[in-house]
Amino acid sequence: MIKPIFFKMTENIENQVGELAQRARKASFILATLSSDQKNAALESIALLIEKRADILSEKNRLDLEAGSQNGLSPALLDRLRLTPERIAAMVEGVRQVATLPDPVGQIIESSVRPNGLDIRKVSVPIGVIGIIYESRPNVTIDCAALCLKSGNASILRGGKEAFHSNSALAELVQDALRETDVPQDAVLLIPTTDREALNHLLKQDENIHCIIPRGGEALIRFVTEHSRIPVIKHYKGVCNLYVDSKADLDLARKIAITAKCGRPGVCNAIENLIVHREIASEFLPKTIDALAEANCEVRADSEALSILKDARPSLTLGEATEEDFHTEFLDLILSIKIVDSLEDAIDAVNRYGSGHSDAIVTTDEPAAERFLAAIDTSTVYWNASTRFTDGFEFGLGSEIGISTDRLHARGPMGLRELCTYKYQVRGNGQTK
Amino acid sequence: MIKPIFFKMTENIENQVGELAQRARKASFILATLSSDQKNAALESIALLIEKRADILSEKNRLDLEAGSQNGLSPALLDRLRLTPERIAAMVEGVRQVATLPDPVGQIIESSVRPNGLDIRKVSVPIGVIGIIYESRPNVTIDCAALCLKSGNASILRGGKEAFHSNSALAELVQDALRETDVPQDAVLLIPTTDREALNHLLKQDENIHCIIPRGGEALIRFVTEHSRIPVIKHYKGVCNLYVDSKADLDLARKIAITAKCGRPGVCNAIENLIVHREIASEFLPKTIDALAEANCEVRADSEALSILKDARPSLTLGEATEEDFHTEFLDLILSIKIVDSLEDAIDAVNRYGSGHSDAIVTTDEPAAERFLAAIDTSTVYWNASTRFTDGFEFGLGSEIGISTDRLHARGPMGLRELCTYKYQVRGNGQTK
Repeated sequence: MIKPIFFKMTENIENQVGELAQRARKASFILATLSSDQKNAALESIALLIEKRADILSEKNRLDLEAGSQNGLSPALLDRLRLTPERIAAMVEGVRQVATLPDPVGQIIESSVRPNGLDIRKVSVPIGVIGIIYESRPNVTIDCAALCLKSGNASILRGGKEAFHSNSALAELVQDALRETDVPQDAVLLIPTTDREALNHLLKQDENIHCIIPRGGEALIRFVTEHSRIPVIKHYKGVCNLYVDSKADLDLARKIAITAKCGRPGVCNAIENLIVHREIASEFLPKTIDALAEANCEVRADSEALSILKDARPSLTLGEATEEDFHTEFLDLILSIKIVDSLEDAIDAVNRYGSGHSDAIVTTDEPAAERFLAAIDTSTVYWNASTRFTDGFEFGLGSEIGISTDRLHARGPMGLRELCTYKYQVRGNGQTK
Repeated sequence: MIKPIFFKMTENIENQVGELAQRARKASFILATLSSDQKNAALESIALLIEKRADILSEKNRLDLEAGSQNGLSPALLDRLRLTPERIAAMVEGVRQVATLPDPVGQIIESSVRPNGLDIRKVSVPIGVIGIIYESRPNVTIDCAALCLKSGNASILRGGKEAFHSNSALAELVQDALRETDVPQDAVLLIPTTDREALNHLLKQDENIHCIIPRGGEALIRFVTEHSRIPVIKHYKGVCNLYVDSKADLDLARKIAITAKCGRPGVCNAIENLIVHREIASEFLPKTIDALAEANCEVRADSEALSILKDARPSLTLGEATEEDFHTEFLDLILSIKIVDSLEDAIDAVNRYGSGHSDAIVTTDEPAAERFLAAIDTSTVYWNASTRFTDGFEFGLGSEIGISTDRLHARGPMGLRELCTYKYQVRGNGQTK
């Protein structure tokens, strides 16, 4: 069998991408009815082969790292690209962990017997073929392949060009590992080129690919959404808000503000905006700003917050927040601060600025909290807890393939179950209508 | 307040459509947290006003019918367009029935308390703003507005040009009915033109419209899917299959074949293909063909079925089925017949030809039935019952806004619940990570 990762995509890219999609689709029919044991055996086979080929993977990864250095990739990007022995071990661990998770396929979601005797069951089934578009981290190849496989989906992977050697070695490994298993080799396919044209054709294969999950920066995700004829599940960005109510426990509010901003500023569930009720602003802001300053966090405050802070801490250099700032995912040690007059104004602000990812209120006032929990239009809304908990592991999903700020199909952290759809099975005894 | 249905969309169509979308979005925030009583009161207000304005509706409808006659619309199309007193009464009845359905919003879908004490609840919430694109039947205006309203969604309606006067009168009526209620008037907006350009702009409003549901012929749905930046839930067509297994009760199989094809051939859950196991073909086909002939149903058979039928019924005129026929939704009294060698061949044929709408097996062999139920990739798969039951009412959903052959979000009949998404509400007690 010719391994798809080896053929050169030079001419007829459209046909070749179409052929890959057809092969994945064919594999998906077989995969859909395999047992958990059959799928888990394939996962173990992949885990074993990663262990066995750790040295080859490191070698291939070195090629990417060398090319990356020559091409002037930033140290941060080179770090994401790197497959250390620990990261290879973590991939193995990840695959084995996915094998231990409950099989999401074949669950009876609900059932009823109609007055005419029809027995109607809504049963979870794989989506079919899932396309994963990602950037530099090569371990995404294995993470996504494992999650798709466990949920009975075929996957078509398209990684970033900077990780091409690493991804090719990983995809070849998966194909080799599947050879002796009941899972068809075409269940995991890598697009053997990082040509944009191939990506464009991939996004048009709506006959054979049923869902696209892009993982990466906002530019990549916008490109994919703009060009895809296949439904896309995504989040563009995480503009998360923390609202400190007039009846907040201010020590707790400060603690959450600091950890949710400064704990790991480069992630999507970190806060970007701190929204503060006027009544407690003068008490809350100065001490909070001290803690932020200590963590080297830049502050951009609206005019009212600015004047409070300048009075209280004349020595600090503070910026004035623009309207644009409140819409920005800084992914950095920068925090925008706004003062509001009321809970309703806070709700308006969060719904206006937020990207529908994660938003929180700190308050001891239960009705205010319940109003906030009901009125904020977001994937996850918190009361007296940090937005940083929006994560598949924290939610008990075992593992996650991404976080959705969309509304259809999946919202918030997406685990194995979100990689499934359902169908109705209807058992009759001769009903003709 | 200026009624949006009256302003002329001449210049700046893009801005005007954008403004409508913003108004609907604003209304959706209010609508999302209204109580069931508030929404039901608004529905009753709509029902009352339809009763009161029945004469005006008939008058406006007459304008559409006259224009339709002049423009040479077919009698079938004119019939779909017509608002008879019975149909007006049925609209009223429909709205009141939606009011009696359980509120799909605010249901706790699942919940857990994590080891760190976080109380995580997955709660059903409205999607937000839903765009409905439909064709000639004006009652869709009211049906869809009522279902969206009950599920807490704002709706933007864009009907067909042949029903423009009727739809405008209905939309004006809804706006008037909402004035005295807690539901904002902008919760139901009609695009005040049937210009294609307005539709194109509508489909780009992904900031403020969250889901598009097209209802109509395949051409309309393909146009919408092709041009939409907003997720679309749809079914292109219903190519439904009936497979008669080697161990089928042949009387039952014949009965299902006839009713599922001839009962109402113009609907999407009628069968188009009859797939027959070779072992019983000689016994099953002749008697079935007699019944089909009696119902004036044209038959297109593959070569093997053709030779069986020609031997058994030399007097009948029969056509040979092309590969194309098996992919075709005839919406008419035409049936394609194919003979297969095995259950697995039948599964392949159904998965290849079907449009993922509804497919059935007739058999007394339980393992064969279970294999078919598991392996067919479709929205609804039946054992010993007709495909015609794929319908929101038959499924006990109360009412339906459409049927989806998509995989993401909703598959099969879509009721109120499918007009909802969910969000996570997380209640903490100071968790900072």
